[in-house]
Amino acid sequence: MNKRKICIVVGSRANYSSIKSVMQAVKDHPDLELQLVVGASAILDRYGNVADLIERDGFKAAARVFMLVEGETPTTMAKSTGLGLIELPMIFESLAPDVVLTVGDRFETMATTLAAAYMNIPLAHTMGGEVSGNIDENIRHAISKFANIHFPACEDARQRIIRMGENPDSVHNTGCPRIDLVAEYLQSDRCLDEALFGEGVGIKFTTDEDFILVSQHPVTGEYGCGETQIGTTLRAVRDTGLPAIVLWPNADAGSEDVARGIRKFRERDPDAPFYYVKNLPIEVYVLLMARTRCLVGNSSSAIREGAFIGTPSVNIGTRQTARQHGRNVINCDYNATAIADAIADRLALRGRLPSEPIYGDGKAGPRIAHLLATEPLTTAKMMTY
Amino acid sequence: MNKRKICIVVGSRANYSSIKSVMQAVKDHPDLELQLVVGASAILDRYGNVADLIERDGFKAAARVFMLVEGETPTTMAKSTGLGLIELPMIFESLAPDVVLTVGDRFETMATTLAAAYMNIPLAHTMGGEVSGNIDENIRHAISKFANIHFPACEDARQRIIRMGENPDSVHNTGCPRIDLVAEYLQSDRCLDEALFGEGVGIKFTTDEDFILVSQHPVTGEYGCGETQIGTTLRAVRDTGLPAIVLWPNADAGSEDVARGIRKFRERDPDAPFYYVKNLPIEVYVLLMARTRCLVGNSSSAIREGAFIGTPSVNIGTRQTARQHGRNVINCDYNATAIADAIADRLALRGRLPSEPIYGDGKAGPRIAHLLATEPLTTAKMMTY
Amino acid sequence: MNKRKICIVVGSRANYSSIKSVMQAVKDHPDLELQLVVGASAILDRYGNVADLIERDGFKAAARVFMLVEGETPTTMAKSTGLGLIELPMIFESLAPDVVLTVGDRFETMATTLAAAYMNIPLAHTMGGEVSGNIDENIRHAISKFANIHFPACEDARQRIIRMGENPDSVHNTGCPRIDLVAEYLQSDRCLDEALFGEGVGIKFTTDEDFILVSQHPVTGEYGCGETQIGTTLRAVRDTGLPAIVLWPNADAGSEDVARGIRKFRERDPDAPFYYVKNLPIEVYVLLMARTRCLVGNSSSAIREGAFIGTPSVNIGTRQTARQHGRNVINCDYNATAIADAIADRLALRGRLPSEPIYGDGKAGPRIAHLLATEPLTTAKMMTY
Amino acid sequence: MNKRKICIVVGSRANYSSIKSVMQAVKDHPDLELQLVVGASAILDRYGNVADLIERDGFKAAARVFMLVEGETPTTMAKSTGLGLIELPMIFESLAPDVVLTVGDRFETMATTLAAAYMNIPLAHTMGGEVSGNIDENIRHAISKFANIHFPACEDARQRIIRMGENPDSVHNTGCPRIDLVAEYLQSDRCLDEALFGEGVGIKFTTDEDFILVSQHPVTGEYGCGETQIGTTLRAVRDTGLPAIVLWPNADAGSEDVARGIRKFRERDPDAPFYYVKNLPIEVYVLLMARTRCLVGNSSSAIREGAFIGTPSVNIGTRQTARQHGRNVINCDYNATAIADAIADRLALRGRLPSEPIYGDGKAGPRIAHLLATEPLTTAKMMTY
Repeated sequence: MNKRKICIVVGSRANYSSIKSVMQAVKDHPDLELQLVVGASAILDRYGNVADLIERDGFKAAARVFMLVEGETPTTMAKSTGLGLIELPMIFESLAPDVVLTVGDRFETMATTLAAAYMNIPLAHTMGGEVSGNIDENIRHAISKFANIHFPACEDARQRIIRMGENPDSVHNTGCPRIDLVAEYLQSDRCLDEALFGEGVGIKFTTDEDFILVSQHPVTGEYGCGETQIGTTLRAVRDTGLPAIVLWPNADAGSEDVARGIRKFRERDPDAPFYYVKNLPIEVYVLLMARTRCLVGNSSSAIREGAFIGTPSVNIGTRQTARQHGRNVINCDYNATAIADAIADRLALRGRLPSEPIYGDGKAGPRIAHLLATEPLTTAKMMTY
Repeated sequence: MNKRKICIVVGSRANYSSIKSVMQAVKDHPDLELQLVVGASAILDRYGNVADLIERDGFKAAARVFMLVEGETPTTMAKSTGLGLIELPMIFESLAPDVVLTVGDRFETMATTLAAAYMNIPLAHTMGGEVSGNIDENIRHAISKFANIHFPACEDARQRIIRMGENPDSVHNTGCPRIDLVAEYLQSDRCLDEALFGEGVGIKFTTDEDFILVSQHPVTGEYGCGETQIGTTLRAVRDTGLPAIVLWPNADAGSEDVARGIRKFRERDPDAPFYYVKNLPIEVYVLLMARTRCLVGNSSSAIREGAFIGTPSVNIGTRQTARQHGRNVINCDYNATAIADAIADRLALRGRLPSEPIYGDGKAGPRIAHLLATEPLTTAKMMTY
Repeated sequence: MNKRKICIVVGSRANYSSIKSVMQAVKDHPDLELQLVVGASAILDRYGNVADLIERDGFKAAARVFMLVEGETPTTMAKSTGLGLIELPMIFESLAPDVVLTVGDRFETMATTLAAAYMNIPLAHTMGGEVSGNIDENIRHAISKFANIHFPACEDARQRIIRMGENPDSVHNTGCPRIDLVAEYLQSDRCLDEALFGEGVGIKFTTDEDFILVSQHPVTGEYGCGETQIGTTLRAVRDTGLPAIVLWPNADAGSEDVARGIRKFRERDPDAPFYYVKNLPIEVYVLLMARTRCLVGNSSSAIREGAFIGTPSVNIGTRQTARQHGRNVINCDYNATAIADAIADRLALRGRLPSEPIYGDGKAGPRIAHLLATEPLTTAKMMTY
Repeated sequence: MNKRKICIVVGSRANYSSIKSVMQAVKDHPDLELQLVVGASAILDRYGNVADLIERDGFKAAARVFMLVEGETPTTMAKSTGLGLIELPMIFESLAPDVVLTVGDRFETMATTLAAAYMNIPLAHTMGGEVSGNIDENIRHAISKFANIHFPACEDARQRIIRMGENPDSVHNTGCPRIDLVAEYLQSDRCLDEALFGEGVGIKFTTDEDFILVSQHPVTGEYGCGETQIGTTLRAVRDTGLPAIVLWPNADAGSEDVARGIRKFRERDPDAPFYYVKNLPIEVYVLLMARTRCLVGNSSSAIREGAFIGTPSVNIGTRQTARQHGRNVINCDYNATAIADAIADRLALRGRLPSEPIYGDGKAGPRIAHLLATEPLTTAKMMTY
């Protein structure tokens, strides 16, 4: 029997950690062959070249595709999707995959989806069905409308996909593959300080003591506000008096705004006890989440990985609105006082909460690989609305 | 008060007749300004340059965009979408519309949708929510996931959009704007024969006598079969002994296949009493639908306009599967005998059936313009799943 | 020693016959490896799918690239070049050729050239240095400015490339590879009538008797005139009373114009003793050139192959202006009388003239392969202006 | 009489200062209308958003085009050219210019050139004919092969364009428009320190005392070496003990390399008396050139503006090889000792040298505008090789 060829397009650092355990499980599965395509911000130095990391992890890319149009505006986000749609078909023609597996809800995910759909290649999708209240959500649901096999990360999402008309037989709650990594990384005994304070800039401290973790991204519907938003957050964090690790934002419309906000804060307040890092290995990030007194910002990690790890978290603004979350998360808006209060509330917990496996039990990768190997493949959809 | 700027992208002959009455109503509305973009096959000679027709109808294009990558394969369909996504953002930047109105379910519709969505421009969508069992359906539903105002053509579609999670307040059953034209054209007293037998090739006859009308398009999921499919149909029609009008297919993956099938039939059977036409004005087409003994093929016109007009129709194969239809339509598969039987059944009706306004009452244009002028505009979506 | 990888991009029927003997010689050379890319009109049914022919000839394409934007206007010609420039870099990255060999002066040639130049891949160029008085000439000379090894087809061209500043050591008069095919095809004993009168339309005759051959293409600088120009030519040819073979034009800005001119002539004058053909194998074309009483139009074949074969030829208009030609060619402008007179003059020759090997002796392929295997490879240029 | 519409595409900071005086003269000319297009790095924050500066200078952009594909590799440089070629035709269609004026030798210049050439728009070109020994030179000469009116910056370049076959009547030595600005800025009495030490980072000093100016860019043919090259330069400058202004590189393949080299130097040697600036207004740069003890790097400004200003300059490596220079410049290679010796030699001059107007007398703008208003416009070229 021929192995089923599973093509996975990795377009960013976040993509990679969301799919790595699936890549490994596909690679290891006797009936599957992994076809890896890397592109978008995953191959750019400016965003920490993830393709190099992927290679060091033992995966070989079959193709790489430069598809980001510079500008990080809504206009260039659309154009980048267009560029991906021009390039990916030739790659798919050449690789002739049996399934294309697309990850999450980013613009390269949309390009991957449309290319596969037009080319009549069965499409699998991870992390569908979730609600986040922004354009990512629209993209996510639109992808569900093209996907032939769905791998939502939680029960809530599975039921929503079905309510939106997808055939229940094609929707499998596998848990989120990113949790697989989290489970593994939590076992690590590496020295966090050593791992952390290499490549960044700012003031170093020891993570054995209390510290805050900041991860805040631009919000698509609020283009132009990123600089102000991150500034408010950083000042609130500074006022706690605790040291903090501050992460640079993803490649997205508006990330330059957020980056500028961070740079300006840093220039004006060079003595704030902050250390700024760009390309944080996921395993280091997970250890930070396990050890931080509070994760502040709007990263989905607070909600997803945070539930599993039990990380006290302040979720600011609209980016994660309506996403199911555990007891570890408290929400607030962009207001300085609200942020300060929310942080104080979380600091009062004095550390990690019990694990809640809402988004997975750490075994999503092998579960998805098994389904990719055994489920019937078709591009026809029998919807049930 | 500033007029709301309504940008409409017309990408094909079919697009145009699906939206013309809305264009007119927007143009005529005191609170609206029409911004017209023409592109894709609408500006190509090869598909009958519809842009010229549009101009003769009194509309002025603000921009035109060549976005079809030659090849008419699944690969080039994806690439054409990509090219549209690269071009449309600059046009939208320049026009700065308050609403983008996108039509139906074609690949240029998807490009329009994504460009507007990424650029945070409120998106209106006509003809959403219908079921057709192919990639067009996936595109249609995916567009609903991005649209902020929905104008489905029938009640069935309205309810499906809501079941898929869209806010009921944003979903308006307006009827299909194409029916507006149909109602108007049915009043025409122009000489059908004169209008018809100008530009095409083949054997002329008089439409005062009985004749068959053939309109068959490639089916995305059945790429490579178009030549055979149209051949079977044409032979079945020829065997009735009646004369026929045969239409060339739309620009789509596989249309070259269907066109080749028509050319080959014509070369092998030059004496079949068929007249072949390319760029048929919609008003002529409607008169043909009112007068033909049977419409044969897989055109959606049999189901939509056909219900209103009462045209006896044979719908072949999977392209319109599961779309709600009236008593005028009988379905069959690609089999030669089945087609022959179905045609015989329709011919036995001996002419037009009573009108069923399933897809509209002829007043969709003004209804949609009124909603575009008065509904709140936002890119936020409050879904209800 | 590793074989040198020679990447050749074939973008049209004309490209293929201009480079086939080089492809064969590269494939056969012990120190070279052929990397074939097919694209643009070479993979489109509408222009006679040359990629299929290439495969039947025993060559395997490493990649194929759809890069024609529909429209055949100056605008789409520019956009097609752009699309090629977006696609070819990924192909070159994947193939990692030691040399890219680009052919002639078409828009895909320019895309190939720029992609190779930016990517620091040594570039070889055939058919540089010739004068033709149109945008093709500008493209040709511009390519010479990027090329690192030049293979002009005639002495005149070699000297012009050097006068324009290229290093004489890098400029080799190899003859035109197309003449290699001509020499071979002239030996053929196949039945011309049988080969010819299969796929086309029109009135058949026997090529054993006198006939005229018409091959006329759009002229870039004269966009919009193609329909009139071909009409004048066809009427002049008809008035000779001789039967004629009429060829459809290349894919180029304006080719739709010329095609329309041909279609209209044919509709108005269905009884003209003309046979119209689309995808003429080069071997059949050469036999036609050897047998025709007169080749009429603006094809470069009159000048290049015509000199070698001795074909009496009428060259109309500006497309070949200033290109060195032999005694077989007489020039005239688009005027009906001038064309008629020129044809009469050629018919008076009563057949083939002696061969003049101005553009090659039939051994260009192996000569070029040898140079590709032995010349030093560099992207540095030492110019001498 | 209608005004001639002159379309100028500005794609970078360097572009703008090379053409600003022409833009002003065109805008002021009674028979000309300026159509300004801004794009590529000129509209990106990352490279100092020059479009904002342009607007503050009183010019209004008719269109802006995002055309940089992220990556800054040879591959993305080619793709960016492709993206420009896809976008610019629609802009040119919409603006319908009588002349497109393209500036210099960058990749957006090539895209502009090809778009205009294919679209039969007369093309004017500034700064052609110069020799620099790299891919920029190939681009520059290739553009000359498409240009219909040439505005070289010096006599040497004028003669070279003619030797390469261009019609002497179409080649005008106008001087370089950038020198117009230089002449004007040298009159400025603004406070240099105030202007300079605002936006950058590093250690401030006063430019009333001796200082060095560093401007070093990536070299296309030496991709991957930028980090090492700039490192060597910065160490040699530091060893002089003088303070220095260090400029960030242009957007080009490899600029990220050079930027990384600067960042690393700065991290390792935070106490070097260097101030690092990104978006230096040309008027400030000119004052720096007038006041610095030595300009070090590979910027063409050393050769062009430097000759007019009399700036003692060390030109490192191959980027400006073979470009005609004045007595103010001394060349050396990437070797640390060679750079140190060359800097010592220039410092010994103890200040500015007499002006040599090799590249212009400060009146190029009005001269070019006059020629654009009065020269015959054609896309035909009568070459003289």
